[in-house]
Amino acid sequence: MGVPDVYFNSWSESFRRPFGAVKIGSMIYFSIRAAGSTITKVDLMIQKDGEQTQEQHMARSSENDSLYYLKFMTEGKAGLYFYHFRISYLENQQEKSVFYGKAVDNYGGEGRAITDPAQIEQYQITCFDHRDPAPDWYVHGVIYHIFVDRFFNGDWYRRILHPKKNTFIYATTEDLPYYIRDKNGDIVRWDFYGGNLNGIIDKLNDLKKLGVSILYLSPIFEASSNHKYDTADYFRIDPMFGDRKIFDKLIARARRMGIHIILDGVFNHVGADSKYFNRFSHYGDGGAYQDLSSKYHDWFTFHGDHDHYECWWDIADLPTVNKEKQTYKDFIFGSENSVVDTWTAAGIGGWRLDVADELSDTFIAGIRKAVDRHDQNENDKVLIGEVWEDASNKISYGKRRHYLDGGMLHGVMNYPFRTLIIDLINGKINAQQAARASFTIKSNYPRDTLFANMNNMGTHDTERIFTMLSENEKKMRLAIWLLMVLPGVPCIYYGDEAGVTGGKDPDNRRFYPWGRENQKILTMFREAIKARRTDENLQIGNFYSFSIGLVFGCLRIQSKDRYTLFLLNPTLESITLDLDHLIDETRGDLIRHCLKGMLQTEKKIEAQSFRIDQTN
Amino acid sequence: MGVPDVYFNSWSESFRRPFGAVKIGSMIYFSIRAAGSTITKVDLMIQKDGEQTQEQHMARSSENDSLYYLKFMTEGKAGLYFYHFRISYLENQQEKSVFYGKAVDNYGGEGRAITDPAQIEQYQITCFDHRDPAPDWYVHGVIYHIFVDRFFNGDWYRRILHPKKNTFIYATTEDLPYYIRDKNGDIVRWDFYGGNLNGIIDKLNDLKKLGVSILYLSPIFEASSNHKYDTADYFRIDPMFGDRKIFDKLIARARRMGIHIILDGVFNHVGADSKYFNRFSHYGDGGAYQDLSSKYHDWFTFHGDHDHYECWWDIADLPTVNKEKQTYKDFIFGSENSVVDTWTAAGIGGWRLDVADELSDTFIAGIRKAVDRHDQNENDKVLIGEVWEDASNKISYGKRRHYLDGGMLHGVMNYPFRTLIIDLINGKINAQQAARASFTIKSNYPRDTLFANMNNMGTHDTERIFTMLSENEKKMRLAIWLLMVLPGVPCIYYGDEAGVTGGKDPDNRRFYPWGRENQKILTMFREAIKARRTDENLQIGNFYSFSIGLVFGCLRIQSKDRYTLFLLNPTLESITLDLDHLIDETRGDLIRHCLKGMLQTEKKIEAQSFRIDQTN
Repeated sequence: MGVPDVYFNSWSESFRRPFGAVKIGSMIYFSIRAAGSTITKVDLMIQKDGEQTQEQHMARSSENDSLYYLKFMTEGKAGLYFYHFRISYLENQQEKSVFYGKAVDNYGGEGRAITDPAQIEQYQITCFDHRDPAPDWYVHGVIYHIFVDRFFNGDWYRRILHPKKNTFIYATTEDLPYYIRDKNGDIVRWDFYGGNLNGIIDKLNDLKKLGVSILYLSPIFEASSNHKYDTADYFRIDPMFGDRKIFDKLIARARRMGIHIILDGVFNHVGADSKYFNRFSHYGDGGAYQDLSSKYHDWFTFHGDHDHYECWWDIADLPTVNKEKQTYKDFIFGSENSVVDTWTAAGIGGWRLDVADELSDTFIAGIRKAVDRHDQNENDKVLIGEVWEDASNKISYGKRRHYLDGGMLHGVMNYPFRTLIIDLINGKINAQQAARASFTIKSNYPRDTLFANMNNMGTHDTERIFTMLSENEKKMRLAIWLLMVLPGVPCIYYGDEAGVTGGKDPDNRRFYPWGRENQKILTMFREAIKARRTDENLQIGNFYSFSIGLVFGCLRIQSKDRYTLFLLNPTLESITLDLDHLIDETRGDLIRHCLKGMLQTEKKIEAQSFRIDQTN
Repeated sequence: MGVPDVYFNSWSESFRRPFGAVKIGSMIYFSIRAAGSTITKVDLMIQKDGEQTQEQHMARSSENDSLYYLKFMTEGKAGLYFYHFRISYLENQQEKSVFYGKAVDNYGGEGRAITDPAQIEQYQITCFDHRDPAPDWYVHGVIYHIFVDRFFNGDWYRRILHPKKNTFIYATTEDLPYYIRDKNGDIVRWDFYGGNLNGIIDKLNDLKKLGVSILYLSPIFEASSNHKYDTADYFRIDPMFGDRKIFDKLIARARRMGIHIILDGVFNHVGADSKYFNRFSHYGDGGAYQDLSSKYHDWFTFHGDHDHYECWWDIADLPTVNKEKQTYKDFIFGSENSVVDTWTAAGIGGWRLDVADELSDTFIAGIRKAVDRHDQNENDKVLIGEVWEDASNKISYGKRRHYLDGGMLHGVMNYPFRTLIIDLINGKINAQQAARASFTIKSNYPRDTLFANMNNMGTHDTERIFTMLSENEKKMRLAIWLLMVLPGVPCIYYGDEAGVTGGKDPDNRRFYPWGRENQKILTMFREAIKARRTDENLQIGNFYSFSIGLVFGCLRIQSKDRYTLFLLNPTLESITLDLDHLIDETRGDLIRHCLKGMLQTEKKIEAQSFRIDQTN
C-alpha cells in the first residue's frame, strides 16, 4: 500500500456543485475520490481570499468508501475562495499527507496529487455579490472597434477638419503609420489621417451590412494626439473629429439603425496639454501646471516643482490624476453634470474603461452608478473594462480587484481568448489545452460576465490578427469562426474584416483600406457575423469546450434540443473523425449527446471547421 | 635715409589703368610712387595664374622722379594675373628690397609695403575672354526666389496635388518646417506643405504688384523630396507641382505679364530614388542600382557593390553623376532633346546652376551653348551659377575656375554681398570695410558680371535676412535699400518681403504667410523695388562704394548728370554730416562731384539712409 489514489475535478458537478462562480452565501457541495485503506482523514483546505486557511473535515460516503464529501457555505463579502485537499494516511505507522490541487498547467478541472505542499496550486471559487447581466442589445450584438482617426474622413473632398497646428497629415490614406520622434524617442509632432465622426456616419450602412450592431469608438474628446488617450477637455468632441452636433447626429442615426455606441472612458490620466494640466499654456493662464491656485491643482501629484509630476508609465504627456480627490470624482461621475453623466445622457450605450487596473474599485463603482442613472429601460447601459488578464483574480497595486462582483464591470476585454485563438490556430497550444484554457475562464467568471466580455482578436494595442496568423487566409477563417462561437461579444477591430495587416503600435493603426479590402476575408466575416447574429445559441448558449484528438470543440447549448456544436481542426490539413468511436471516448454527457445528434446527419466529418445547429 | 616711401592703389586709374577686369590682350598701364634717393630699381612682379613670375622693370618718369611706370600686355588665354611690386634700394652699400602688395585686409585698392616677401598678398587682374552681358530683361529686373512647395497651393480647397505615398503633409500652412528623421538622423519621410505651380500662377498678379519681373524657381522636376534637388526624372514636372500643361501655362501667363522664369538646374547628382539610379525599384527593373547593364550604370561610380557609390556630401540620397561621361553630357546639354534644350525651348528665361563648383568648366560651357541655342532674339537667356565665394578666383577641386571668362556664367549668386549687407548693418564691419569689400568684388568681376549677379540677402540655404537682423524693422529697411542700390540683380527670397523669420534649413523654408504678412516690411520692399525698377542708374549705373565716417556711400552713376547717390547710416542713431567738410576729405572726383550735387539741395543730412537721384 502506498500513496492513496486521489481524483477531483472542479469542472464536474460530481465533485463540485454548483459549477463555477457563485453568488456569495451559496452552499457548495464538494466531493473527492480517495482510495486507500490507510487513509486517516480527508480535509478541504479552504480560505477566503487573504484570510487564514480553514481545515474542513470531509465525511466518508456511506455508499462508496472511496468518496468523501462536504458542503461548504460561502459567506461574507463577495470575493474569492481558494481551496485544495489534504488526504492524510498512514505509512509505516507515520501519518503522511498527499495534497490535491490544480494541474501543472494551472488550469482548473482535473488536478493532481502531490506530496510537497509548497507546490500546490489552489482551485478558485469566484463569489459575486449579485448577478449583473449586461444589456440584451449588448450580449446579442457584435461590436466594431473604431480607431476614429484611422477609419474614414466624411469630408467630400477629404479635407482635414480643423487640423491642429504643428502636426502632420499623412499624404495618402495608404501610408503606413509612423511616429514622429526626436532623438530621445519622444513624439514631437502628432500624425493624422483625418478620420472623423462624419466618416463613421457615412459608413453606418456598410457597418450595418457587415452585421455590426455596436460601435466601440476610441476616445473622441479633445486631445492633442491622434489616439486621444490624452484628454484635453472631457466636455468637447475633438474638433478634428467633429462637434456635439455631429456627435448627436451619429448617435441618432446609429440608433435608428439599431446600432449602439460605446465610448472609451479615459479617467486615469489627462493630457499634459489639457485645460486641467495646461503644460503648454494652450488653455490660457490656468491649469495645474501654470497655476498653484488652479482648481485642478490638487488633481495631480507634483514633486518639488511643476516640471516633476506623476504620470502614467512615465509618459510626460500623460499626467496621472489622483483619483481619490473628491472634486475629481465629482467631476468624472459624482455630479449631475459629470463627464459620465453628460455623455451617457447623450444617448450612448455605455463605456469601455481605459486602464481599469489603475482605477480603484470604488471609482469604478461610482462610474457604474452614474452610468446606471441613465438607464431608460431597466438595464440598457453597459460598462466594460480594459483588463488584460483573467479579471476574476486580478491583483493591481497589491490589491485584489473586484471587477466582477456585480455593480462594477459587466465584462472585460477578453485578451485571454485572443491568446487562445491565436495560439490554437498557430499550433502553439493544442486542442486540449485550448479547451482547458477556455473552460478555466468559464469557471472563474460569473456566467453573466462570460457573455458580456468584449472578445477581441486584436486591438489598437496589439498586432493585427491577420498578421499574427501569418496572413494565412485559411487560418483567418478559423479565427473568425472561433471568435463568433466563443462566449462573449465578438469585437472586430476596424479593418480586420478587410484583411488589414500590421505589427505593434503604430503599425496596427493603419487607415482603413477603402476600396482595397480583401474580399475573401470580408466575406468570411460577413458569413460568420451573420451566423452569430442569427443563432441565439452562439449568443447565450451555455458554453462547453472540449477536444477530440486534434480537434477543438465548442458547444453552445440552450437546451437539449437547442444547441450549436462547433468543431475546429486547427491543423489546416484534412482529418477524418470517426464519431462513433469518438463518442465513446468523450467525457461529458452533454457533449456526447450533441455529438450523437451529429451522427444523425453524417457519420464522418471531413472539414477544417464544422458547425452544426440543432435548433429543433 | 631708410626704406623708400611707396604707394600704389589698384583702384585708382592713376596707378592702374584701365580699372578692374579686362579683356585678355588688353594693355595695362601701371604706375607706382616710390620716393627715395637710394632706389636702384622698381619691378612689377607679375605672373599669369599658375605660371612663373616675371620681373618687369619699371621706368622712372621723366617728369616726376618718384613715379615709375610700365605698360603690360595681357596675353594668352583668359584667366588671372597676380602682381605685386619690388622696390630695390641701397642701404649701407647693400641692395635691399621692399615689396608692395595688397593691404592686410586682403581687399584691393591701397596696399602696403612690407619687407618680408613671404607675407605679400598679390593684387589680381581678371582677364576675360570676351564681354558677356546678361540679357537686358535680367539686368534691369528684380528676381523673386520661390521654394515651390512653400509658396502657395493653387487648389481651391487646398487639396494636395498628387501627394506622394508615405510622406507627410503639414496640418496647417502656419506649421513650422520639421525634418522627419530616424535615430541616425536620416530623413525617413518627406514633409510637404503643398505649394505648386498653379499656386504661382494664382499669385502672379501679387508678384507683379510687388514689382518682381523674374521668378527663380527651386527645382520643379520630379523628385522624392520637398526641395527636389534629388531629381528623379528630368523630363517630368513633379506631379505634386503640376504637369507640363500647367508649366506651359505658367510660362505663358508670366510672359504676358513681363515676367521671366529661371529654373534651377541640378546636374551634379540625381536622386537615389530616380529612374537613373532607381535604388528603391520605384522605376521598374532598370537603373544603375538595379541593373549592371543599365544605360545609366556608367553615370555613377560604384565601389565594390551597388550599395557603395559616390554621392554628394555623403548623402546617400544623392548619388553623384560622373559628369565627364559623354552620354550624360549628351543627356543634359549635348543633344537636340537634352534636358537643357528641352526646357529652355519651352520658353524659360534661363537657369541657375546648382553647385556650379561641382561642374567642370567644359560642362558649364556646354550648358551655356545649349542655352544660347534657344536665344530667340540675340542674348535673351541667362545662366547663373551657385558659387558662394568670389567667383573670379574660385578654386574647386584644386582647379582655378573660369566662370566669368565669357561664354560660361553670366553671373553668380552673390553671397559676398549678403555677408556685406548683414555685417554692415549689424555693425560687424564698418562703412569703410564695407566699401572696400564691395569695391574688391567690383574690381575682380567683369563689369557685365557685376550687373548680372543674383544678389541674395537670404536663400533656402541660409538663415532668413529678418532673423539675421534680429527682427529689427529699422535694420530691415536698410538691408532692403542696400540690396536695391548695390550692383547686380536683387533677388528676394519668397517671404522675406512679408517679414518671415527663420533660422537655418528647414526653418528658412516656412510656408508663405498669406494674410499674415508684416505690412510694414512689405511696404518697404514695394517702395524700394519700385525705386530700383524705375531708376536705371540703380540697374546699370557704374558702381562706387565709399565711406564718410560711419556712413556707407554707394554711387550708381551713368554720367555726370545721371546718377543716384545712396548714403546709409548703419548705426540706427541719428548722425549729422557736414557735407562741406566731408567733401574736402573725400577722395575720388566722381564722388566729390556727386556729393557737391547733393549740396545744392541740402546742407546737412540727418537720416538713416538717404538717396538722391540726379537724373537731369
